[in-house]
Amino acid sequence: MKNVKVIIWGMGAMGSGMAEVLLQKKGVDVVGAIDIGEKVGKPIFDILGKEFPGNENIIIGTVEETITEKAADIVLLCTDSFTVKAFDKIKLIVENKMNVITTAEEMAYPKAQSPKLAETIDELAKANGVSVLGTGVNPGLIMDTLVLVLTGACTDIKHITSRRVNSLSPFGQAVMEEQGIGITVEDFEKGKADGSLSGHVGFPESIGLIVEGLGWEIDEIEQSMEPIVTDVDREAPHGEAKAGEVAGVSMKAFGKKDGKTIIEMDHPQQIEPEQVGVNTGDYVIIDGTPKVNMVGSPEVEGGIGTIAMCVNMIPQTINARPGLVTMIDLPIPRAILGDFRDQIHPDAKIVR
Amino acid sequence: MKNVKVIIWGMGAMGSGMAEVLLQKKGVDVVGAIDIGEKVGKPIFDILGKEFPGNENIIIGTVEETITEKAADIVLLCTDSFTVKAFDKIKLIVENKMNVITTAEEMAYPKAQSPKLAETIDELAKANGVSVLGTGVNPGLIMDTLVLVLTGACTDIKHITSRRVNSLSPFGQAVMEEQGIGITVEDFEKGKADGSLSGHVGFPESIGLIVEGLGWEIDEIEQSMEPIVTDVDREAPHGEAKAGEVAGVSMKAFGKKDGKTIIEMDHPQQIEPEQVGVNTGDYVIIDGTPKVNMVGSPEVEGGIGTIAMCVNMIPQTINARPGLVTMIDLPIPRAILGDFRDQIHPDAKIVR
Repeated sequence: MKNVKVIIWGMGAMGSGMAEVLLQKKGVDVVGAIDIGEKVGKPIFDILGKEFPGNENIIIGTVEETITEKAADIVLLCTDSFTVKAFDKIKLIVENKMNVITTAEEMAYPKAQSPKLAETIDELAKANGVSVLGTGVNPGLIMDTLVLVLTGACTDIKHITSRRVNSLSPFGQAVMEEQGIGITVEDFEKGKADGSLSGHVGFPESIGLIVEGLGWEIDEIEQSMEPIVTDVDREAPHGEAKAGEVAGVSMKAFGKKDGKTIIEMDHPQQIEPEQVGVNTGDYVIIDGTPKVNMVGSPEVEGGIGTIAMCVNMIPQTINARPGLVTMIDLPIPRAILGDFRDQIHPDAKIVR
Repeated sequence: MKNVKVIIWGMGAMGSGMAEVLLQKKGVDVVGAIDIGEKVGKPIFDILGKEFPGNENIIIGTVEETITEKAADIVLLCTDSFTVKAFDKIKLIVENKMNVITTAEEMAYPKAQSPKLAETIDELAKANGVSVLGTGVNPGLIMDTLVLVLTGACTDIKHITSRRVNSLSPFGQAVMEEQGIGITVEDFEKGKADGSLSGHVGFPESIGLIVEGLGWEIDEIEQSMEPIVTDVDREAPHGEAKAGEVAGVSMKAFGKKDGKTIIEMDHPQQIEPEQVGVNTGDYVIIDGTPKVNMVGSPEVEGGIGTIAMCVNMIPQTINARPGLVTMIDLPIPRAILGDFRDQIHPDAKIVR
């Protein structure tokens, strides 16, 4: 079998990180990279700031140059958070008969916010014999897949709490803007009101995955979003907040059935939480038979976690039946420490 | 779609527990139960000690009466720990064209101890168009699947520690005997030497799943097994140990590469640990990029956890491609709280 061929679309913090990981793995080649503006025409090693001996130093190209029929086995799409924004790009990739993994949070369970686009993507993917997955550390792992895996030990469940207290510091410029890092409370409220501040994108998706995975039913999802205002100046690699400014967002969501909350999501996220004594961590608390009380501390790091999940789900996505898939349709995620080709099923949809 | 039809083979603590859970679930029927001796001919509600209105009170039968061609969609086989002992039963079920889930610990990854039987089971299952899965709480979830799922957030790993400090109290008579509960240290050493005391069965299987899942390589697995001698009298539902007797087993295993341990498994298990101030818990510690440090406390309860895993993996096993499958081949485990039929793929191997 030839090496697995990957194109990375979007060479920001996430896409660059995936390139760097893939360039150090066996049985997989980065055969294309896409960005806009000044990055186009630059060799990938320049963007990554180091050499990767034994790998081709490919040139970052435009969409038109790079997305051609069967140019790769899979495209890692790292450009958007919302299904509606990612849709045209996914369509183009799929019509060029390549599988897709995207970091777009809404794509972890696109039925939640864009059911019609989800249906169209499913049809397009089936028609072109490829699979489309949205994943990342969250949504994708911590507040949905991990929760579901732990319910595997339960015969019955009354209530689920998923709590993620995390640092935004590892994330790039796009995330800083989405979270309102460094803006005033007034601007935060304005951005929240006009929808330009998204905060964490992923609650309806994580809740959707849990509900579908368990075969549960809910009537509604309530969400809240409040600013975390810092008392001290905080500085992260891609964003900063002076005292009195917004250093993060406290997000909550409640999945309700008959007016009663059965799924609770609590997700305060901010830059540099250590500066103010906040201990980060991931919590899964299942009130069921039996009870589950799991704590990971500190939290599984957001940036590298998302990079890892997208890279690690490549074989499962290539192996999957054609169509739109989610984390509950595929075999369990796990790190790939050996040759990527060993994880590819002999009958998988791979460009030979 | 008709209800999913299940036969339970072995009405001990595990099989009875599965029957009880299934009799309370939607879209699934217990259509047969098998045991030996006095239980044969008894109505299942008598054995379970309660009524389940709306369900048929089936009579516990013999193997010959119950295992007939396509008598059910799946058989839950809860009689053995070792592949070699379970093999003839699995063969019979598979040749009668029914899927199998077994609690036999070695069947979680039968390639580890019985590679030839594993191959034969795979061939038989494929020839008969059915799937065979071994699972449970451990092996099956805590020391393998859960570990692997958490590695999904990692790009690289140096060392993995999985620790399970658990109570044996929820388990049945078979487990008490396998663990040497209530025997003397002298008898423990004798049983260990002649192989009649198995302790925890599952380390080579959990390590095998991790190694294959990650695409890692190891050269050898070292195991150790020491008695946990109690200072106080302990009494559990299915076993007891007087002061000075064996109340449990401290098991360890080390997966080594080039003489260096890369996977460490630590699993002290005993009846009534609370009586002597031992806090139970499940630990996953990954020295990788990023580091993962997960603790579930108390441990996910062994008895009900195994019952749940076997019941909850029914749809994934019915949906799977024919052959011998493991937890790394199938979609993530999760509780089934709705109708079982909603989790069955339209093209799955189900008896219509």
